[in-house]
Amino acid sequence: MKLDSSSEDSILAKIAHGAGLSSRTRAPRARLLLGIGDDAALFELHPGCETILTCDWFLEGTHFLREKHPPDSVGWKCLARAVSDVAAMGGVPRCCLLSLAVPASLTGRWLDSFLAGLRRASRKFNCVLAGGDTTRRDQILINVTVVGEVRKGRALTRSGAHPGDLIYVSGRLGEAEWGLRLLKQSKARRNPKLSPMRKHLYPEPRLALGQWLAARRVASAMMDLSDGLSSDLPRLCAASGVGARLLASQIPAVQIPARSRTGKADPAQLALHGGDDYELLFIVPPRHKNLMPRSFHSLPLTEIGVITPKRQIVLLDENSHARSLSPRGWDPFRRYY
Amino acid sequence: MKLDSSSEDSILAKIAHGAGLSSRTRAPRARLLLGIGDDAALFELHPGCETILTCDWFLEGTHFLREKHPPDSVGWKCLARAVSDVAAMGGVPRCCLLSLAVPASLTGRWLDSFLAGLRRASRKFNCVLAGGDTTRRDQILINVTVVGEVRKGRALTRSGAHPGDLIYVSGRLGEAEWGLRLLKQSKARRNPKLSPMRKHLYPEPRLALGQWLAARRVASAMMDLSDGLSSDLPRLCAASGVGARLLASQIPAVQIPARSRTGKADPAQLALHGGDDYELLFIVPPRHKNLMPRSFHSLPLTEIGVITPKRQIVLLDENSHARSLSPRGWDPFRRYY
Repeated sequence: MKLDSSSEDSILAKIAHGAGLSSRTRAPRARLLLGIGDDAALFELHPGCETILTCDWFLEGTHFLREKHPPDSVGWKCLARAVSDVAAMGGVPRCCLLSLAVPASLTGRWLDSFLAGLRRASRKFNCVLAGGDTTRRDQILINVTVVGEVRKGRALTRSGAHPGDLIYVSGRLGEAEWGLRLLKQSKARRNPKLSPMRKHLYPEPRLALGQWLAARRVASAMMDLSDGLSSDLPRLCAASGVGARLLASQIPAVQIPARSRTGKADPAQLALHGGDDYELLFIVPPRHKNLMPRSFHSLPLTEIGVITPKRQIVLLDENSHARSLSPRGWDPFRRYY
Repeated sequence: MKLDSSSEDSILAKIAHGAGLSSRTRAPRARLLLGIGDDAALFELHPGCETILTCDWFLEGTHFLREKHPPDSVGWKCLARAVSDVAAMGGVPRCCLLSLAVPASLTGRWLDSFLAGLRRASRKFNCVLAGGDTTRRDQILINVTVVGEVRKGRALTRSGAHPGDLIYVSGRLGEAEWGLRLLKQSKARRNPKLSPMRKHLYPEPRLALGQWLAARRVASAMMDLSDGLSSDLPRLCAASGVGARLLASQIPAVQIPARSRTGKADPAQLALHGGDDYELLFIVPPRHKNLMPRSFHSLPLTEIGVITPKRQIVLLDENSHARSLSPRGWDPFRRYY
């Protein structure tokens, strides 16, 4: 049997080769018993742990643009996004599945570069590619599943916040959104040294911070910021049955050179509504405030507000004027980018 | 915060409502600790088991047609396909994730009916919907992840076949392909009582048979028939480093009324190359032949050939003429339907 060079089996072989795995290979970290090439993947998780399971779309035209996003960034980011959900529970990623639909014309160089980015992320996050599904399609469609684990009872969910608890974020918000704008404007070659663009193209899920918060039992609730603070914070509050009061002046925002600041490039607005940052939003009971460092391995941790009993999200500006904060972050049912 | 009726949060609420789950609900079978509505799902698997992980695309235009496939069949089948991979390992499904992209115009009746089909399948296969991801898209895109488990060391893979082992299939092959043709021809209302059409629209993964074969250690290798015997058998043989000799006259084929038989509706061809049957292809060492019943809970089990040392797939016709069998089943990189 000879197979067409772009047949499903040959694409699977390319992906499996990249994963450095064959059937019955044992990868000690994930204890993967059976990788790519069978009906399903097979692995053993550690006793005393709960299993974390998450998946994420990454679709051409909705989540990335074929002409603007380098293929290795697409490979990196599709995994990073899903791994960020594991970070948001305080967990450790173990293995992943890649579902990929591509045009036959992209099964050469584009696919190679995509797989290189995916492999780099897989090594960085210790998350072994264990299987998946491929098919042909005129547009690039990606779905990534990640399995992780967390010590029994230690997972941080969205539902543990109580009135009086303090609201924290990691990093600076709005950087990825600003990076996306730079990327869309750029006619010449992209300069990935520019920090916001790098953050948009190659986000780094906050795994170590999430694991530290879960292991030390410092936080009462946590989630990752994927759609933007104004969209994500209400979700955490709804799950906990509480509200929040934010101090606008405290929210750590993307730094934009003065010459680039316009009405549409307001750092405060980007920090409130920009998506794709994959920073952690976490809630700390006041009795644990003294345990909170100002930064975690050079990643700034900032207190930005407080949980309130009344179920609404209020933003206090510099003059202590309060206004209700509406979700204006990323919602695929409201707009495309 | 008021949400647009088609916003992502309200669609998630609809899906979660359908799943009959809220955060921190405990569903004893899957020991689901955290369902839809957080960053990820959280569950505990049974000690002494290995974890099975699989995912499957189900895409409009590639795997189903919006005008021809009833939405509840789309919901049923997207889960059944992925569950079939768990059956193929001899495992028990535990929980699933749904990634769904739909046009905003289909978030009403179409989505309700889709979710009803998915829920029916989820109950039938004891596979709890634990989470997922939704987005908007002009075409319907579906990806389903299923997690299952199997007793340590008991999983049946594709790689255990040895020369001299006997080749078996469950059911009748080609029924789903014939059902698809009837569906595409039908101008009037579909008649789901017609067995081949029912098999195409609402396939039933052979979970009980797979579990029986794995628990009794009767089979040496197994896979499910999703792309057609001529495409799938070579994959099992390649994984085992062997070949196969099939007896054409023994292959149980779809029954087609004489008046409908044409060159394109040849039962033997449909049985060799038709996809979507989700029957099991399994390999039995000759010493276990006496353990094999003729049927399993009224599902016929048929010996169709033997594993050979030479790596090629040979088909013997009624006159004992041998010819090489080429993969002509479903390959998304070769053709659309």
